[in-house]
Amino acid sequence: MGVLISEVGPRDGLQSIAPIMPTAAKCAWIDDLAAAGVTEIEVGSFVPAKLLPQLADTAQIVRHARTIPGLTVAALVPNARGAADAIEAGAHKITLPLSCSESHSLANLRRTHAQVLAEAAAVAELIRALPQGQRPHFEGSLSTAFGCTLEGHVPPAKVAELAQALMKAGCDEVGLADTTGYANPASVAILIRAVWSAVGKDALTGIHLHNTRGLGLANALAAFEVGITTFDSSQAGLGGCPFAPGASGNIVTEDLVFMFEAMGVGTGIDLDALIAARRHLATAFPDEPLYGFTSAAGVPLDFVPATPSKQGAFA
Amino acid sequence: MGVLISEVGPRDGLQSIAPIMPTAAKCAWIDDLAAAGVTEIEVGSFVPAKLLPQLADTAQIVRHARTIPGLTVAALVPNARGAADAIEAGAHKITLPLSCSESHSLANLRRTHAQVLAEAAAVAELIRALPQGQRPHFEGSLSTAFGCTLEGHVPPAKVAELAQALMKAGCDEVGLADTTGYANPASVAILIRAVWSAVGKDALTGIHLHNTRGLGLANALAAFEVGITTFDSSQAGLGGCPFAPGASGNIVTEDLVFMFEAMGVGTGIDLDALIAARRHLATAFPDEPLYGFTSAAGVPLDFVPATPSKQGAFA
Repeated sequence: MGVLISEVGPRDGLQSIAPIMPTAAKCAWIDDLAAAGVTEIEVGSFVPAKLLPQLADTAQIVRHARTIPGLTVAALVPNARGAADAIEAGAHKITLPLSCSESHSLANLRRTHAQVLAEAAAVAELIRALPQGQRPHFEGSLSTAFGCTLEGHVPPAKVAELAQALMKAGCDEVGLADTTGYANPASVAILIRAVWSAVGKDALTGIHLHNTRGLGLANALAAFEVGITTFDSSQAGLGGCPFAPGASGNIVTEDLVFMFEAMGVGTGIDLDALIAARRHLATAFPDEPLYGFTSAAGVPLDFVPATPSKQGAFA
Repeated sequence: MGVLISEVGPRDGLQSIAPIMPTAAKCAWIDDLAAAGVTEIEVGSFVPAKLLPQLADTAQIVRHARTIPGLTVAALVPNARGAADAIEAGAHKITLPLSCSESHSLANLRRTHAQVLAEAAAVAELIRALPQGQRPHFEGSLSTAFGCTLEGHVPPAKVAELAQALMKAGCDEVGLADTTGYANPASVAILIRAVWSAVGKDALTGIHLHNTRGLGLANALAAFEVGITTFDSSQAGLGGCPFAPGASGNIVTEDLVFMFEAMGVGTGIDLDALIAARRHLATAFPDEPLYGFTSAAGVPLDFVPATPSKQGAFA
């Protein structure tokens, strides 16, 4: 039994940081994450460079990350135009977000649900036009699934309906994203089951949780207990719309990995090596706070991880 | 269905802070916590004043807190001498810690398990000598139950054996304390069940978790799911041996209350009023970091707590 940790730091983490991390530094960071055992990394977003200068080198990053054996290279795309770029660069996985709150969708993307679903269909068409074996995995991400700062609560039935619509548009899978940090352990279990009822278990295996109100790991535990197997998180908790000092927005990968490994649930990730990879962020962003408890406290004495350490540090 | 939140900030929180909080300020803080709906507060520790000057006024605090209707006034005692003082001051609940790691017990209290158990028996004798109706509730707290920085892992069988010994010595109840932040959701469930097998479910209803490695709320969720109903936590996450900047040692009461209330599990606590009580700490300790995510992010839009707000702020 194990889980897949999908590292989103190079995309969701970096996109909220102003100082540009040099391309070579991003590549070195991704190399070290992969060497630590991370097998899926969202490396960037195919948005116009003027909108997100930090991620302007996403195509280069994808090309580099593709050279790492065994790594699933994921990229976010806002539309079919971005998907075409992602396909050209060679992304293995393409994620298109659809905001469950239509107000949020209009305010942030200036698009109705129907318009985003049309983009999803266009992306699916692009993918279908590729030769089999070269088609990236296509995920529709249900953002603001647990509520929105404009609309508040989003009914699970609405999320389930949009999940169905995304699958019908041609997604291989949907994911749930707690963009606003509104989820709690009870709503996590309820929403997963509601979406499963609509699209089946195989069509929803992953969740993207934030830690805005401190419940990130508790929500991840709840999702794991229900049967979710893929968890997005960000090294050092970078990104995810942080609200407060000391408060990271994204779940901290190091703490999430520690939780699972301590529970005997393998992540395939060497915690020592993962923590060591923080150095790339410390170097690139000397003024940016790096979050995480496990990296500061260290693992417990005689800790036995589920994933054997490559370096024998826990032996 | 609800849970009992036992606020330990005035004891476990304050004991690690050097600047002395004036007695009147402590009383005002406790008043506001109680007014917010907190029904159990560990208000201090009956240790020699020269060891812990911050808690030298514990007897006064107990006497004041006793005047608050409906509040269970709890106090920590290291030995029978302290228990006599706690009884004299009028504590409703007395907690005596026993460190499950004997190395830790010897290093910190200079006492073997046998010596601590003898103190427990002496405390029980003091209590039995009181007229019925005036006897405080007596809890033996199994500290370092999830492991110790000197010994590492403590076998659940050992913890269960010590739980039995404490009950035999005359405790009304035992509690589990993750003094070192070593617990994980799986070990929480395992240890609770092991102790229940030894002493029965009624003899273990509470848990004291730390957030040292970021797993505090996930561990609380795991304990709740197994059937634990009393949770220690500290306002603003004060105390609990913090390791790192941004890392609180104790679970943050505000975040814990938010988690349960959002799940529909009543705490009886008004979250707005609870968060407002942080001002006492901000005033007393302008240089001390106050932790917590919910207080910074605010509750979700159209949030419906399980406990109706007295002020209608969530209505």
